[in-house]
Amino acid sequence: MPNYKAPLRDIRFVTEELLQFNLHYSKLSGCEEASPDMVSAIVEEGAKFSERVLAPLNRIGDMQGCQYKDSNVITPDGFKEAYQQYVDGGWPSLSHPENVGGQGLPDSLGMIVTEMIATSNWAWSMYPGLSHGAMKTIELHGTEEQKQLYLTKLVSGVWTGTMCLTESHCGTDLGMLKTKAEPQDDGSFKVSGTKIFISAGEHDMAENIVHIVLARLPNAPEGTKGISLFIVPKFNLGESGDIGSRNAVTCGSIEHKMGIHGNATCVMNFDGATGFLIGPANKGLNCMFTFMNTARLGTALQGLAHSEWALQNSVCYAKDRLQMRSLSGIKEPDKAADPIIVHPDVRRMLLTQKAFSEGGRALIHYCSLLVDVSKRGSEEERVEAEELMSLLTPIAKAFLTETGFESANLGLQVFGGHGYISEWGMEQNVRDCRISMLYEGTTGIQALDLLGRKVLMSQGETLKRFTKIVHKFCKENESHPSLGELINQLNALNTEWGEVTMTVAMKAMKNRDEVGAASVDYLMFSGYVTLAYFWARMAVLAQQKLEKGAAEENFYTAKLQTAHFYFQRILPRTRAHIAAMLSGADNLLAMDANDFIFLDD
Amino acid sequence: MPNYKAPLRDIRFVTEELLQFNLHYSKLSGCEEASPDMVSAIVEEGAKFSERVLAPLNRIGDMQGCQYKDSNVITPDGFKEAYQQYVDGGWPSLSHPENVGGQGLPDSLGMIVTEMIATSNWAWSMYPGLSHGAMKTIELHGTEEQKQLYLTKLVSGVWTGTMCLTESHCGTDLGMLKTKAEPQDDGSFKVSGTKIFISAGEHDMAENIVHIVLARLPNAPEGTKGISLFIVPKFNLGESGDIGSRNAVTCGSIEHKMGIHGNATCVMNFDGATGFLIGPANKGLNCMFTFMNTARLGTALQGLAHSEWALQNSVCYAKDRLQMRSLSGIKEPDKAADPIIVHPDVRRMLLTQKAFSEGGRALIHYCSLLVDVSKRGSEEERVEAEELMSLLTPIAKAFLTETGFESANLGLQVFGGHGYISEWGMEQNVRDCRISMLYEGTTGIQALDLLGRKVLMSQGETLKRFTKIVHKFCKENESHPSLGELINQLNALNTEWGEVTMTVAMKAMKNRDEVGAASVDYLMFSGYVTLAYFWARMAVLAQQKLEKGAAEENFYTAKLQTAHFYFQRILPRTRAHIAAMLSGADNLLAMDANDFIFLDD
Repeated sequence: MPNYKAPLRDIRFVTEELLQFNLHYSKLSGCEEASPDMVSAIVEEGAKFSERVLAPLNRIGDMQGCQYKDSNVITPDGFKEAYQQYVDGGWPSLSHPENVGGQGLPDSLGMIVTEMIATSNWAWSMYPGLSHGAMKTIELHGTEEQKQLYLTKLVSGVWTGTMCLTESHCGTDLGMLKTKAEPQDDGSFKVSGTKIFISAGEHDMAENIVHIVLARLPNAPEGTKGISLFIVPKFNLGESGDIGSRNAVTCGSIEHKMGIHGNATCVMNFDGATGFLIGPANKGLNCMFTFMNTARLGTALQGLAHSEWALQNSVCYAKDRLQMRSLSGIKEPDKAADPIIVHPDVRRMLLTQKAFSEGGRALIHYCSLLVDVSKRGSEEERVEAEELMSLLTPIAKAFLTETGFESANLGLQVFGGHGYISEWGMEQNVRDCRISMLYEGTTGIQALDLLGRKVLMSQGETLKRFTKIVHKFCKENESHPSLGELINQLNALNTEWGEVTMTVAMKAMKNRDEVGAASVDYLMFSGYVTLAYFWARMAVLAQQKLEKGAAEENFYTAKLQTAHFYFQRILPRTRAHIAAMLSGADNLLAMDANDFIFLDD
Repeated sequence: MPNYKAPLRDIRFVTEELLQFNLHYSKLSGCEEASPDMVSAIVEEGAKFSERVLAPLNRIGDMQGCQYKDSNVITPDGFKEAYQQYVDGGWPSLSHPENVGGQGLPDSLGMIVTEMIATSNWAWSMYPGLSHGAMKTIELHGTEEQKQLYLTKLVSGVWTGTMCLTESHCGTDLGMLKTKAEPQDDGSFKVSGTKIFISAGEHDMAENIVHIVLARLPNAPEGTKGISLFIVPKFNLGESGDIGSRNAVTCGSIEHKMGIHGNATCVMNFDGATGFLIGPANKGLNCMFTFMNTARLGTALQGLAHSEWALQNSVCYAKDRLQMRSLSGIKEPDKAADPIIVHPDVRRMLLTQKAFSEGGRALIHYCSLLVDVSKRGSEEERVEAEELMSLLTPIAKAFLTETGFESANLGLQVFGGHGYISEWGMEQNVRDCRISMLYEGTTGIQALDLLGRKVLMSQGETLKRFTKIVHKFCKENESHPSLGELINQLNALNTEWGEVTMTVAMKAMKNRDEVGAASVDYLMFSGYVTLAYFWARMAVLAQQKLEKGAAEENFYTAKLQTAHFYFQRILPRTRAHIAAMLSGADNLLAMDANDFIFLDD
């Protein structure tokens, strides 16, 4: 039976030993309360909640799915009760500002808890997860009144929120959206249109749902420059700010989909629903961009979540399952066969999952520390943190979800035929993971964002922000007695990163399609190098710990071994991506659109 | 809505123009009847059956799944009727010998029909597909009486068959199996035990089911040398050979699984069921190995099937779906946006699917021609064909299912968020495909078979059989005016194939675990080179056709373009596999089995 244990030891390694969260907290304004003791206590409580309340509901959520009946959505058994425990435990407000009822703790601390919640039950985690977009919108762009009316309720978790962007004919291309908002005499708007793929658009877990809806005002400019944001609550607010009459927004149906069955993906019909403009008219997309990075980091986390889940369960299975003898001689003579973890290829699959999970954890929490700094650091620190985030977010989102899907599939593969059977949970993990490469911008969109918008539009300056950090690390460690070769490999790739960027930039000046033609390979290359940086840092740190004679020798030795595995067996994939991205756009563009398939009649 | 059209033009290109089936048929003994006209007629009828009868049932099969009730299995609506049409059309007997009621046509012709059936509805195709194992067993190892009693019924399709190998504690490691067979005074046996993962083990489509069961005789040697084969029919045969009393074999349950819902995966309980020994006692596994290659080729086909299905549907969607403008300027000004096929990265995904589908088709049908030659050729031809098959089968099985899964996922990805929604069918295609890397020997098992058994045990001779063919082709075309560079690339990789084999062989002499450590990367490398050979051949042929001023210029030009795409964008992956396989076993073996995860308590 699948199970989840919060990987507290590894989380501590990443957040305390590697990234030194406590040191940062002691220096960042407003983080004083996050003392080491308090952090530990919160993380341990979060672990218990994830392991004991959410993990047992993960498979139930998949099997039962959500039920749609007369515009209502019934969530799987236990989901509602778990949400109530989540609210009672004060989890929703953890890292929100105190002036709207939050606890004001660092975002990076919230991310540790979110990692555990997300891994134990991704589908459930989307209900509170989607609220964040709504909260961010109101926090950044709402009036004081809107904050008091809506944000306080969202922060307390009594209400949840959604983001209503997609329509059936447009997802990526929001400039095409058709939902309309008609101004009313009282300053409100009547919102009309149909939105699809609205996660948590309707459910039975909270008393009200606050939709943030993208729509067009009358005579708004065409395209992306004519989109405005509206608050549309499921229930209108009464005089006191409590729930009043039902608003004209209803769930028309829920989607049947590959996975995340426990989360309702809704078609939402707005039939002249009462809404309120939030932020400036026609600037809706700009407003959304202000928190795009944090939203995408939340999806990057999904890659880590399914990778970690796969790792834990497939390692346990590989130690337990007896099948065949080791090629190099019998390892457990008293058993009917050796456990499959003796086989090198099974280890290859486990180590790949381990390298992506633990490397991904380092990247995720590094990014979430940047979120803190971007909010609470000095002016100079903020600028740097924001620039780094803008570079690393599309990498984290696309690379960690692509590698997370690889991990999830390898986890299934370790189980052999049993991996395909539902009761083991490995196939659910693959199905649930698959959406992560699609929503919040597909891998292709992230790649265009990275190469086209972030790297090339800044003339490479944004990239340099990060490659300088990597370069500095390499310089400091170039004569490392045992890890010198690994550091050199990283240094060479880091230099190459800048070089290939130049090459692609030159080509793109002649033909803009060269950007799209190189983009996904460029992103994957960037991801492998970024993870190599974190693995090199982790290796150097582990080596230091071992030399100091630290306890937990096995833990630090395993870090070193995984780093070597990553550099020797995973990192060579960069060669394939370099060759593909430098091969140019011609091999993609030459074919006539009608010549991809030749089917008679 | 997903759809399937038999790719008759491409099938004709591969089987007639490239592999010249008709020329082979005219020379192979017993293939005289397969005239070009007859072949065309059969293929066209098969196309109609696949498109009109099976394809429309594919999604129904997934949605309804099989129902289990009181030991019976009810197949999805229409499956039974489609099977009756299949039997009435004479399809089961197409390439079986005439002395048991077959039509005696070449296996390679059967494979063309099977490709279309498999692609249109994989889950359905497994019902007749599984019969082949049972038929092969009886054909090769049965007595004359067994052939007349069972084989004739299987060949006509009135009955279906299964292969009952796996038990809950052993799949790969069949030496551990526990099912027992007790001899009876009348020469029959009482078979007792439980088998799992029995595809088509129970259903409502045929009047009897013939199980081929692996079991142990009393006092049989331990391990793989003590396994015998038994025929165990669902219904015992009466005097006349028709159906008599119910035998003591029942379906205990069916599995809930990721995909192929339309096919029943059964737990089969044998409670002293009457069985009959087939082949020599204790030689059951050897008997099974005699047709392992053809069974695995059938699964290799699944990779092609899902790749082709993904290609057809994602190309149609990409031409239809409007989203964003081309980076290099508006392509369709009269539309609200450009069709997504203008975007280079969408083309990358489509071309990857195309390269794997059409390249895979060439490999599959090349292998099935080898099956013909191995049965009907001269002694020398047979030996060569069998050796080539033994090499190419694990490559085809593992490489085409791994790349088929990649294609299926890319197909889904082209649809963006819609790909995750069931009604489009792309997510079913991914789920259905996922099993192909597991059953009939996982990718890891195929890789050990290729490197350990086929290549190294023959001291590289088996590999040389194929690399010589590739070398000869390269020599003949090395000064090709327009394709010389591509040929050189193939030639270099072909040489490297031999070299890395030597390197791994040397390492393996010191440590057998080096075989397992290199195996999957070795297999994938082999797959990419093998496909490169077929793409090079197809490119040379297409170029010839164009020079001769053939009609269908677009078709041949697309072949050339896809070949260039494959060489420039896919083949560089070989660098990653080379580096990984040569990195040695240490980076896999160093870690203690207890150090893969550190979870408290």
